[in-house]
Amino acid sequence: MKGFVSFVSAGPGDPELLTLKGANRLHSADVILYDDLASGRILDHARQGAKLIYVGKRAGKPSTKQKHITQLLLQHATPGVCVVRLKSGDVGIFGRLEEEIEALTSAGIDFEIIPGVTAGCAAAAAARIPLTRRYHSRRIQFITGSDVTGSLPQDINWPALVDPLASTVVYMGQRTFPKLAQELIDRGLPGETPAIFAETIGHPDQVVVRTTVKDLAAKLASKPNGKTAVILFGPLAASSETAT
Amino acid sequence: MKGFVSFVSAGPGDPELLTLKGANRLHSADVILYDDLASGRILDHARQGAKLIYVGKRAGKPSTKQKHITQLLLQHATPGVCVVRLKSGDVGIFGRLEEEIEALTSAGIDFEIIPGVTAGCAAAAAARIPLTRRYHSRRIQFITGSDVTGSLPQDINWPALVDPLASTVVYMGQRTFPKLAQELIDRGLPGETPAIFAETIGHPDQVVVRTTVKDLAAKLASKPNGKTAVILFGPLAASSETAT
Repeated sequence: MKGFVSFVSAGPGDPELLTLKGANRLHSADVILYDDLASGRILDHARQGAKLIYVGKRAGKPSTKQKHITQLLLQHATPGVCVVRLKSGDVGIFGRLEEEIEALTSAGIDFEIIPGVTAGCAAAAAARIPLTRRYHSRRIQFITGSDVTGSLPQDINWPALVDPLASTVVYMGQRTFPKLAQELIDRGLPGETPAIFAETIGHPDQVVVRTTVKDLAAKLASKPNGKTAVILFGPLAASSETAT
Repeated sequence: MKGFVSFVSAGPGDPELLTLKGANRLHSADVILYDDLASGRILDHARQGAKLIYVGKRAGKPSTKQKHITQLLLQHATPGVCVVRLKSGDVGIFGRLEEEIEALTSAGIDFEIIPGVTAGCAAAAAARIPLTRRYHSRRIQFITGSDVTGSLPQDINWPALVDPLASTVVYMGQRTFPKLAQELIDRGLPGETPAIFAETIGHPDQVVVRTTVKDLAAKLASKPNGKTAVILFGPLAASSETAT
Protein backbone atom coordinates (compact mmCIF):
# COMPACT_ATOMS: atom_id res chain seq x y z
CA MET A 1 0.00 0.00 0.00
CA LYS A 2 1.56 3.22 -1.17
CA GLY A 3 -1.38 5.53 -0.49
CA PHE A 4 -4.86 5.97 -1.93
CA VAL A 5 -6.70 8.76 -3.73
CA SER A 6 -10.47 9.10 -4.22
CA PHE A 7 -11.41 11.14 -7.26
CA VAL A 8 -14.75 12.61 -6.16
CA SER A 9 -17.26 14.20 -8.54
CA ALA A 10 -18.62 17.35 -6.90
CA GLY A 11 -21.59 17.70 -9.26
CA PRO A 12 -22.64 20.95 -10.88
CA GLY A 13 -22.44 23.24 -7.85
CA ASP A 14 -25.55 22.68 -5.74
CA PRO A 15 -24.17 20.95 -2.61
CA GLU A 16 -27.29 18.76 -2.62
CA LEU A 17 -26.34 17.37 -6.03
CA LEU A 18 -23.33 15.64 -4.54
CA THR A 19 -23.82 11.87 -4.20
CA LEU A 20 -24.05 10.22 -0.80
CA LYS A 21 -20.80 8.39 -1.57
CA GLY A 22 -19.09 11.66 -2.48
CA ALA A 23 -20.29 13.23 0.78
CA ASN A 24 -18.99 10.22 2.73
CA ARG A 25 -15.58 10.40 1.05
CA LEU A 26 -15.33 14.14 1.83
CA HIS A 27 -16.27 13.47 5.43
CA SER A 28 -13.55 10.79 5.77
CA ALA A 29 -10.83 12.77 4.01
CA ASP A 30 -7.65 13.92 5.70
CA VAL A 31 -6.65 16.02 2.69
CA ILE A 32 -8.90 17.52 -0.01
CA LEU A 33 -7.49 19.07 -3.18
CA TYR A 34 -10.21 21.16 -4.83
CA ASP A 35 -10.78 23.39 -7.87
CA ASP A 36 -12.60 26.69 -8.33
CA LEU A 37 -15.92 25.10 -9.16
CA ALA A 38 -15.76 22.31 -6.61
CA SER A 39 -15.75 24.64 -3.65
CA GLY A 40 -18.08 26.71 -1.48
CA ARG A 41 -20.72 24.85 0.45
CA ILE A 42 -19.66 21.46 -0.89
CA LEU A 43 -16.61 21.70 1.35
CA ASP A 44 -18.93 21.87 4.37
CA HIS A 45 -18.94 18.05 4.08
CA ALA A 46 -15.27 17.98 5.12
CA ARG A 47 -14.62 17.11 8.74
CA GLN A 48 -13.10 19.57 11.19
CA GLY A 49 -9.33 19.43 10.89
CA ALA A 50 -9.18 18.17 7.30
CA LYS A 51 -6.54 19.92 5.21
CA LEU A 52 -8.19 21.78 2.32
CA ILE A 53 -5.85 22.66 -0.53
CA TYR A 54 -6.95 24.98 -3.29
CA VAL A 55 -5.51 24.01 -6.68
CA GLY A 56 -7.73 26.07 -8.98
CA LYS A 57 -6.90 28.42 -11.79
CA ARG A 58 -5.55 31.14 -9.56
CA ALA A 59 -3.07 28.71 -7.99
CA GLY A 60 -0.66 28.89 -10.92
CA LYS A 61 -0.24 29.48 -14.64
CA PRO A 62 -2.21 27.05 -16.84
CA SER A 63 1.03 25.45 -18.04
CA THR A 64 2.33 24.71 -14.57
CA LYS A 65 -1.01 24.07 -12.90
CA GLN A 66 -1.36 20.40 -13.80
CA LYS A 67 2.20 19.52 -12.76
CA HIS A 68 1.64 21.37 -9.52
CA ILE A 69 -1.56 19.41 -8.80
CA THR A 70 0.15 16.12 -9.61
CA GLN A 71 3.04 16.95 -7.28
CA LEU A 72 0.61 17.78 -4.47
CA LEU A 73 -1.31 14.54 -5.03
CA LEU A 74 1.86 12.44 -4.88
CA GLN A 75 3.11 14.37 -1.87
CA HIS A 76 -0.04 13.81 0.19
CA ALA A 77 -1.03 10.28 -0.91
CA THR A 78 1.07 8.46 1.68
CA PRO A 79 0.01 5.25 3.47
CA GLY A 80 -2.85 5.76 5.92
CA VAL A 81 -3.85 9.19 4.60
CA CYS A 82 -7.27 9.56 2.94
CA VAL A 83 -6.80 11.94 0.01
CA VAL A 84 -9.76 13.28 -1.96
CA ARG A 85 -9.28 14.97 -5.31
CA LEU A 86 -12.52 16.95 -5.76
CA LYS A 87 -13.48 18.04 -9.27
CA SER A 88 -16.66 19.71 -10.45
CA GLY A 89 -19.37 17.88 -12.39
CA ASP A 90 -18.53 14.27 -13.20
CA VAL A 91 -14.76 13.91 -12.84
CA GLY A 92 -14.57 11.82 -16.02
CA ILE A 93 -16.11 14.41 -18.37
CA PHE A 94 -13.66 17.09 -19.52
CA GLY A 95 -11.87 16.94 -16.17
CA ARG A 96 -8.34 16.11 -17.44
CA LEU A 97 -8.54 13.12 -15.15
CA GLU A 98 -6.17 10.97 -17.23
CA GLU A 99 -3.11 13.04 -16.36
CA GLU A 100 -3.65 12.61 -12.65
CA ILE A 101 -4.44 8.90 -13.00
CA GLU A 102 -1.25 8.34 -15.00
CA ALA A 103 0.86 10.09 -12.37
CA LEU A 104 -0.65 8.02 -9.57
CA THR A 105 -0.30 4.76 -11.50
CA SER A 106 3.35 5.50 -12.29
CA ALA A 107 3.97 6.10 -8.61
CA GLY A 108 2.16 2.89 -7.61
CA ILE A 109 -0.59 4.72 -5.78
CA ASP A 110 -4.05 3.17 -5.93
CA PHE A 111 -7.20 5.17 -6.63
CA GLU A 112 -10.97 5.03 -7.12
CA ILE A 113 -13.37 7.17 -9.16
CA ILE A 114 -16.69 8.30 -7.67
CA PRO A 115 -18.96 9.36 -10.54
CA GLY A 116 -21.32 12.32 -10.26
CA VAL A 117 -23.83 14.59 -11.94
CA THR A 118 -22.33 16.18 -15.03
CA ALA A 119 -23.23 19.76 -15.97
CA GLY A 120 -25.12 18.67 -19.11
CA CYS A 121 -27.58 16.58 -17.10
CA ALA A 122 -27.94 19.34 -14.52
CA ALA A 123 -28.54 21.99 -17.18
CA ALA A 124 -31.25 19.95 -18.88
CA ALA A 125 -32.91 19.30 -15.51
CA ALA A 126 -32.81 23.02 -14.71
CA ALA A 127 -34.36 23.72 -18.11
CA ARG A 128 -37.02 21.11 -17.30
CA ILE A 129 -36.32 18.99 -20.37
CA PRO A 130 -35.01 15.45 -20.95
CA LEU A 131 -31.55 15.21 -22.57
CA THR A 132 -32.80 12.59 -25.03
CA ARG A 133 -36.11 12.20 -26.81
CA ARG A 134 -37.56 9.21 -28.58
CA TYR A 135 -37.56 9.64 -32.37
CA HIS A 136 -36.27 13.23 -32.34
CA SER A 137 -33.05 13.10 -30.36
CA ARG A 138 -31.74 9.59 -29.90
CA ARG A 139 -28.09 10.65 -29.91
CA ILE A 140 -26.69 13.16 -27.43
CA GLN A 141 -23.07 14.27 -27.63
CA PHE A 142 -20.86 16.18 -25.26
CA ILE A 143 -18.03 18.28 -26.70
CA THR A 144 -15.63 20.86 -25.34
CA GLY A 145 -15.55 24.37 -26.79
CA SER A 146 -11.98 24.95 -25.63
CA ASP A 147 -8.72 23.14 -26.28
CA VAL A 148 -5.71 23.54 -23.97
CA THR A 149 -4.96 26.98 -25.45
CA GLY A 150 -8.57 28.14 -24.91
CA SER A 151 -9.37 28.09 -28.64
CA LEU A 152 -12.06 26.12 -30.45
CA PRO A 153 -10.61 22.62 -31.07
CA GLN A 154 -9.45 21.99 -34.66
CA ASP A 155 -10.65 18.40 -34.88
CA ILE A 156 -14.41 18.93 -34.59
CA ASN A 157 -16.55 16.40 -36.49
CA TRP A 158 -18.89 18.89 -38.17
CA PRO A 159 -21.37 16.43 -39.73
CA ALA A 160 -21.89 14.80 -36.33
CA LEU A 161 -22.81 18.21 -34.87
CA VAL A 162 -25.01 19.36 -37.76
CA ASP A 163 -27.09 16.14 -37.57
CA PRO A 164 -30.75 17.22 -37.09
CA LEU A 165 -31.49 14.07 -35.07
CA ALA A 166 -28.84 14.67 -32.42
CA SER A 167 -28.47 17.17 -29.63
CA THR A 168 -25.18 18.59 -28.43
CA VAL A 169 -23.94 19.85 -25.08
CA VAL A 170 -20.96 22.20 -25.29
CA TYR A 171 -18.78 22.42 -22.18
CA MET A 172 -16.44 25.37 -21.66
CA GLY A 173 -17.77 26.90 -24.85
CA GLN A 174 -19.08 30.31 -23.88
CA ARG A 175 -16.18 32.28 -25.35
CA THR A 176 -15.80 30.26 -28.54
CA PHE A 177 -19.51 29.74 -29.27
CA PRO A 178 -19.81 32.59 -31.80
CA LYS A 179 -17.13 30.92 -33.94
CA LEU A 180 -18.59 27.42 -33.41
CA ALA A 181 -22.07 28.63 -34.34
CA GLN A 182 -20.85 30.33 -37.52
CA GLU A 183 -19.01 27.18 -38.61
CA LEU A 184 -22.13 25.10 -37.93
CA ILE A 185 -24.39 27.50 -39.82
CA ASP A 186 -21.93 27.57 -42.75
CA ARG A 187 -22.25 23.77 -42.85
CA GLY A 188 -26.03 23.76 -42.91
CA LEU A 189 -27.23 23.93 -39.32
CA PRO A 190 -30.28 26.24 -39.31
CA GLY A 191 -29.52 29.40 -37.30
CA GLU A 192 -32.98 28.99 -35.77
CA THR A 193 -32.00 25.66 -34.17
CA PRO A 194 -33.16 25.84 -30.54
CA ALA A 195 -30.45 26.43 -27.95
CA ILE A 196 -30.30 26.63 -24.19
CA PHE A 197 -27.71 28.68 -22.37
CA ALA A 198 -27.21 27.54 -18.77
CA GLU A 199 -24.86 29.54 -16.55
CA THR A 200 -23.62 28.76 -13.02
CA ILE A 201 -25.99 25.77 -12.90
CA GLY A 202 -26.68 24.53 -9.39
CA HIS A 203 -25.68 27.84 -7.80
CA PRO A 204 -28.09 30.41 -6.35
CA ASP A 205 -27.40 32.80 -9.27
CA GLN A 206 -28.18 30.13 -11.89
CA VAL A 207 -29.40 31.46 -15.25
CA VAL A 208 -31.21 29.36 -17.89
CA VAL A 209 -32.08 31.06 -21.19
CA ARG A 210 -33.99 29.54 -24.11
CA THR A 211 -32.82 30.97 -27.39
CA THR A 212 -31.52 29.93 -30.83
CA VAL A 213 -28.03 29.11 -32.05
CA LYS A 214 -27.88 32.33 -34.08
CA ASP A 215 -29.18 34.64 -31.35
CA LEU A 216 -27.00 33.08 -28.67
CA ALA A 217 -23.92 33.49 -30.86
CA ALA A 218 -24.74 37.17 -31.39
CA LYS A 219 -25.30 37.74 -27.70
CA LEU A 220 -22.10 35.99 -26.61
CA ALA A 221 -20.06 37.81 -29.29
CA SER A 222 -21.05 41.18 -27.88
CA LYS A 223 -21.21 40.31 -24.21
CA PRO A 224 -19.19 37.32 -23.06
CA ASN A 225 -18.41 36.83 -19.41
CA GLY A 226 -16.10 34.59 -17.48
CA LYS A 227 -18.76 32.53 -15.74
CA THR A 228 -19.13 28.79 -16.18
CA ALA A 229 -21.78 27.83 -18.67
CA VAL A 230 -22.95 24.92 -20.76
CA ILE A 231 -24.76 25.33 -24.05
CA LEU A 232 -27.26 22.82 -25.44
CA PHE A 233 -28.47 22.92 -29.01
CA GLY A 234 -30.53 20.66 -31.22
CA PRO A 235 -34.03 19.21 -31.26
CA LEU A 236 -34.17 18.61 -27.53
CA ALA A 237 -33.84 22.28 -26.76
CA ALA A 238 -37.15 22.90 -28.54
CA SER A 239 -39.23 21.24 -25.89
CA SER A 240 -40.39 23.49 -23.12
CA GLU A 241 -42.17 23.37 -19.82
CA THR A 242 -45.37 24.32 -21.63
CA ALA A 243 -45.25 21.01 -23.51
CA THR A 244 -44.60 20.16 -27.14
CA MET B 1 -51.71 24.33 -7.22
CA LYS B 2 -52.88 21.11 -8.80
CA GLY B 3 -50.24 18.79 -7.35
CA PHE B 4 -46.52 18.36 -7.77
CA VAL B 5 -44.24 15.59 -9.03
CA SER B 6 -40.49 15.27 -8.45
CA PHE B 7 -38.73 13.25 -11.13
CA VAL B 8 -35.83 11.78 -9.16
CA SER B 9 -32.76 10.20 -10.76
CA ALA B 10 -31.89 7.04 -8.85
CA GLY B 11 -28.38 6.74 -10.31
CA PRO B 12 -26.91 3.49 -11.61
CA GLY B 13 -27.94 1.16 -8.79
CA ASP B 14 -25.54 1.70 -5.89
CA PRO B 15 -27.75 3.38 -3.25
CA GLU B 16 -24.75 5.57 -2.35
CA LEU B 17 -24.72 7.00 -5.88
CA LEU B 18 -28.04 8.71 -5.26
CA THR B 19 -27.67 12.48 -4.75
CA LEU B 20 -28.39 14.08 -1.39
CA LYS B 21 -31.30 15.93 -3.02
CA GLY B 22 -32.68 12.66 -4.40
CA ALA B 23 -32.43 11.06 -0.97
CA ASN B 24 -34.24 14.03 0.59
CA ARG B 25 -37.04 13.87 -1.96
CA LEU B 26 -37.49 10.14 -1.35
CA HIS B 27 -37.60 10.75 2.37
CA SER B 28 -40.32 13.42 1.99
CA ALA B 29 -42.42 11.47 -0.50
CA ASP B 30 -45.95 10.30 0.21
CA VAL B 31 -46.05 8.25 -2.98
CA ILE B 32 -43.14 6.78 -4.97
CA LEU B 33 -43.60 5.27 -8.43
CA TYR B 34 -40.52 3.21 -9.28
CA ASP B 35 -39.11 1.05 -12.07
CA ASP B 36 -37.23 -2.26 -12.05
CA LEU B 37 -33.80 -0.66 -11.91
CA ALA B 38 -34.68 2.10 -9.46
CA SER B 39 -35.51 -0.26 -6.66
CA GLY B 40 -33.87 -2.37 -3.98
CA ARG B 41 -31.88 -0.57 -1.34
CA ILE B 42 -32.55 2.85 -2.87
CA LEU B 43 -36.11 2.58 -1.58
CA ASP B 44 -34.72 2.37 1.97
CA HIS B 45 -34.64 6.17 1.75
CA ALA B 46 -38.44 6.24 1.71
CA ARG B 47 -40.09 7.07 5.02
CA GLN B 48 -42.24 4.58 6.94
CA GLY B 49 -45.76 4.72 5.58
CA ALA B 50 -44.92 6.02 2.12
CA LYS B 51 -46.85 4.32 -0.65
CA LEU B 52 -44.47 2.49 -2.99
CA ILE B 53 -45.90 1.65 -6.40
CA TYR B 54 -44.07 -0.62 -8.78
CA VAL B 55 -44.50 0.41 -12.43
CA GLY B 56 -41.68 -1.59 -14.04
CA LYS B 57 -41.63 -3.90 -17.01
CA ARG B 58 -43.51 -6.67 -15.33
CA ALA B 59 -46.36 -4.29 -14.50
CA GLY B 60 -47.81 -4.44 -18.00
CA LYS B 61 -47.15 -4.95 -21.68
CA PRO B 62 -44.69 -2.46 -23.20
CA SER B 63 -47.47 -0.87 -25.23
CA THR B 64 -49.73 -0.20 -22.28
CA LYS B 65 -47.02 0.41 -19.69
CA GLN B 66 -46.45 4.11 -20.39
CA LYS B 67 -50.17 4.96 -20.38
CA HIS B 68 -50.55 3.08 -17.13
CA ILE B 69 -47.70 5.04 -15.51
CA THR B 70 -49.13 8.32 -16.71
CA GLN B 71 -52.55 7.44 -15.29
CA LEU B 72 -51.02 6.57 -11.93
CA LEU B 73 -49.03 9.83 -11.88
CA LEU B 74 -52.11 11.92 -12.59
CA GLN B 75 -54.17 9.95 -10.09
CA HIS B 76 -51.71 10.50 -7.21
CA ALA B 77 -50.48 14.03 -7.94
CA THR B 78 -53.19 15.81 -6.01
CA PRO B 79 -52.72 19.00 -3.95
CA GLY B 80 -50.66 18.45 -0.82
CA VAL B 81 -49.31 15.04 -1.85
CA CYS B 82 -45.56 14.69 -2.48
CA VAL B 83 -45.18 12.36 -5.46
CA VAL B 84 -41.78 11.06 -6.54
CA ARG B 85 -41.29 9.40 -9.91
CA LEU B 86 -38.07 7.44 -9.46
CA LYS B 87 -36.16 6.38 -12.58
CA SER B 88 -32.78 4.73 -12.86
CA GLY B 89 -29.63 6.58 -13.93
CA ASP B 90 -30.23 10.20 -14.90
CA VAL B 91 -33.94 10.58 -15.59
CA GLY B 92 -33.24 12.71 -18.67
CA ILE B 93 -31.13 10.14 -20.53
CA PHE B 94 -33.15 7.48 -22.37
CA GLY B 95 -35.79 7.60 -19.65
CA ARG B 96 -38.82 8.46 -21.83
CA LEU B 97 -39.28 11.41 -19.53
CA GLU B 98 -40.96 13.60 -22.15
CA GLU B 99 -44.14 11.52 -22.22
CA GLU B 100 -44.66 11.88 -18.49
CA ILE B 101 -43.82 15.61 -18.56
CA GLU B 102 -46.31 16.20 -21.36
CA ALA B 103 -49.07 14.40 -19.46
CA LEU B 104 -48.42 16.44 -16.31
CA THR B 105 -48.22 19.71 -18.21
CA SER B 106 -51.50 18.98 -20.00
CA ALA B 107 -53.13 18.34 -16.63
CA GLY B 108 -51.69 21.56 -15.14
CA ILE B 109 -49.54 19.66 -12.64
CA ASP B 110 -46.18 21.23 -11.80
CA PHE B 111 -42.95 19.23 -11.60
CA GLU B 112 -39.21 19.38 -11.03
CA ILE B 113 -36.34 17.25 -12.35
CA ILE B 114 -33.56 16.10 -10.01
CA PRO B 115 -30.57 15.08 -12.14
CA GLY B 116 -28.37 12.13 -11.27
CA VAL B 117 -25.50 9.86 -12.21
CA THR B 118 -26.06 8.32 -15.62
CA ALA B 119 -24.94 4.75 -16.32
CA GLY B 120 -22.25 5.88 -18.79
CA CYS B 121 -20.46 7.94 -16.16
CA ALA B 122 -20.82 5.14 -13.61
CA ALA B 123 -19.50 2.53 -16.04
CA ALA B 124 -16.41 4.60 -16.88
CA ALA B 125 -15.77 5.19 -13.18
CA ALA B 126 -16.10 1.46 -12.49
CA ALA B 127 -13.65 0.80 -15.34
CA ARG B 128 -11.32 3.39 -13.78
CA ILE B 129 -11.14 5.55 -16.89
CA PRO B 130 -12.25 9.09 -17.76
CA LEU B 131 -15.11 9.38 -20.28
CA THR B 132 -13.22 12.04 -22.26
CA ARG B 133 -9.53 12.45 -23.03
CA ARG B 134 -7.68 15.48 -24.29
CA TYR B 135 -6.61 15.10 -27.95
CA HIS B 136 -7.84 11.52 -28.34
CA SER B 137 -11.48 11.62 -27.30
CA ARG B 138 -12.90 15.11 -27.17
CA ARG B 139 -16.39 14.05 -28.22
CA ILE B 140 -18.44 11.51 -26.27
CA GLN B 141 -21.85 10.41 -27.48
CA PHE B 142 -24.64 8.46 -25.85
CA ILE B 143 -26.94 6.40 -28.05
CA THR B 144 -29.62 3.82 -27.46
CA GLY B 145 -29.30 0.34 -28.92
CA SER B 146 -33.06 -0.25 -28.81
CA ASP B 147 -36.00 1.58 -30.30
CA VAL B 148 -39.53 1.16 -28.93
CA THR B 149 -39.83 -2.24 -30.61
CA GLY B 150 -36.52 -3.43 -29.11
CA SER B 151 -34.71 -3.33 -32.46
CA LEU B 152 -31.63 -1.35 -33.42
CA PRO B 153 -32.86 2.16 -34.38
CA GLN B 154 -32.96 2.84 -38.13
CA ASP B 155 -31.75 6.44 -37.95
CA ILE B 156 -28.22 5.89 -36.64
CA ASN B 157 -25.65 8.43 -37.83
CA TRP B 158 -22.93 5.97 -38.83
CA PRO B 159 -20.12 8.44 -39.62
CA ALA B 160 -20.57 10.02 -36.18
CA LEU B 161 -20.08 6.60 -34.57
CA VAL B 162 -17.17 5.47 -36.75
CA ASP B 163 -15.21 8.69 -35.94
CA PRO B 164 -11.84 7.58 -34.48
CA LEU B 165 -11.69 10.69 -32.28
CA ALA B 166 -14.98 10.08 -30.48
CA SER B 167 -16.11 7.52 -27.93
CA THR B 168 -19.60 6.10 -27.73
CA VAL B 169 -21.72 4.80 -24.88
CA VAL B 170 -24.53 2.46 -25.94
CA TYR B 171 -27.48 2.21 -23.56
CA MET B 172 -29.87 -0.75 -23.76
CA GLY B 173 -27.71 -2.24 -26.47
CA GLN B 174 -26.73 -5.66 -25.22
CA ARG B 175 -29.10 -7.60 -27.47
CA THR B 176 -28.57 -5.52 -30.63
CA PHE B 177 -24.80 -5.02 -30.29
CA PRO B 178 -23.81 -7.83 -32.68
CA LYS B 179 -25.79 -6.11 -35.44
CA LEU B 180 -24.55 -2.63 -34.48
CA ALA B 181 -20.93 -3.83 -34.43
CA GLN B 182 -21.23 -5.48 -37.84
CA GLU B 183 -22.69 -2.31 -39.35
CA LEU B 184 -19.88 -0.24 -37.81
CA ILE B 185 -17.17 -2.63 -39.02
CA ASP B 186 -18.71 -2.66 -42.51
CA ARG B 187 -18.39 1.14 -42.47
CA GLY B 188 -14.75 1.17 -41.47
CA LEU B 189 -14.60 0.93 -37.70
CA PRO B 190 -11.68 -1.39 -36.87
CA GLY B 191 -12.93 -4.57 -35.20
CA GLU B 192 -10.04 -4.19 -32.77
CA THR B 193 -11.46 -0.89 -31.44
CA PRO B 194 -11.35 -1.13 -27.64
CA ALA B 195 -14.66 -1.76 -25.92
CA ILE B 196 -15.86 -2.00 -22.35
CA PHE B 197 -18.86 -4.08 -21.35
CA ALA B 198 -20.34 -2.99 -18.02
CA GLU B 199 -23.19 -5.02 -16.56
CA THR B 200 -25.36 -4.28 -13.49
CA ILE B 201 -23.12 -1.31 -12.67
CA GLY B 202 -23.44 -0.09 -9.11
CA HIS B 203 -24.84 -3.43 -7.91
CA PRO B 204 -22.92 -6.01 -5.87
CA ASP B 205 -22.75 -8.35 -8.89
CA GLN B 206 -21.28 -5.66 -11.16
CA VAL B 207 -19.19 -6.95 -14.08
CA VAL B 208 -16.73 -4.83 -16.08
CA VAL B 209 -14.98 -6.48 -19.03
CA ARG B 210 -12.32 -4.92 -21.28
CA THR B 211 -12.55 -6.28 -24.78
CA THR B 212 -12.84 -5.21 -28.44
CA VAL B 213 -15.85 -4.36 -30.57
CA LYS B 214 -15.42 -7.55 -32.62
CA ASP B 215 -14.93 -9.90 -29.68
CA LEU B 216 -17.77 -8.38 -27.69
CA ALA B 217 -20.13 -8.74 -30.65
CA ALA B 218 -19.18 -12.41 -30.98
CA LYS B 219 -19.66 -13.04 -27.29
CA LEU B 220 -23.05 -11.31 -27.11
CA ALA B 221 -24.27 -13.07 -30.27
CA SER B 222 -23.70 -16.44 -28.68
CA LYS B 223 -24.55 -15.63 -25.10
CA PRO B 224 -26.82 -12.66 -24.51
CA ASN B 225 -28.59 -12.23 -21.22
CA GLY B 226 -31.33 -10.00 -19.98
CA LYS B 227 -29.27 -7.99 -17.52
CA THR B 228 -28.81 -4.26 -17.79
CA ALA B 229 -25.57 -3.26 -19.44
CA VAL B 230 -23.87 -0.33 -21.07
CA ILE B 231 -21.22 -0.71 -23.73
CA LEU B 232 -18.45 1.82 -24.32
CA PHE B 233 -16.28 1.77 -27.41
CA GLY B 234 -13.69 4.05 -28.93
CA PRO B 235 -10.31 5.49 -27.98
CA LEU B 236 -11.23 6.07 -24.34
CA ALA B 237 -11.76 2.39 -23.77
CA ALA B 238 -8.09 1.76 -24.56
CA SER B 239 -6.82 3.41 -21.41
CA SER B 240 -6.44 1.12 -18.46
CA GLU B 241 -5.68 1.21 -14.80
CA THR B 242 -2.12 0.23 -15.61
CA ALA B 243 -1.61 3.58 -17.35
CA THR B 244 -1.27 4.51 -21.01
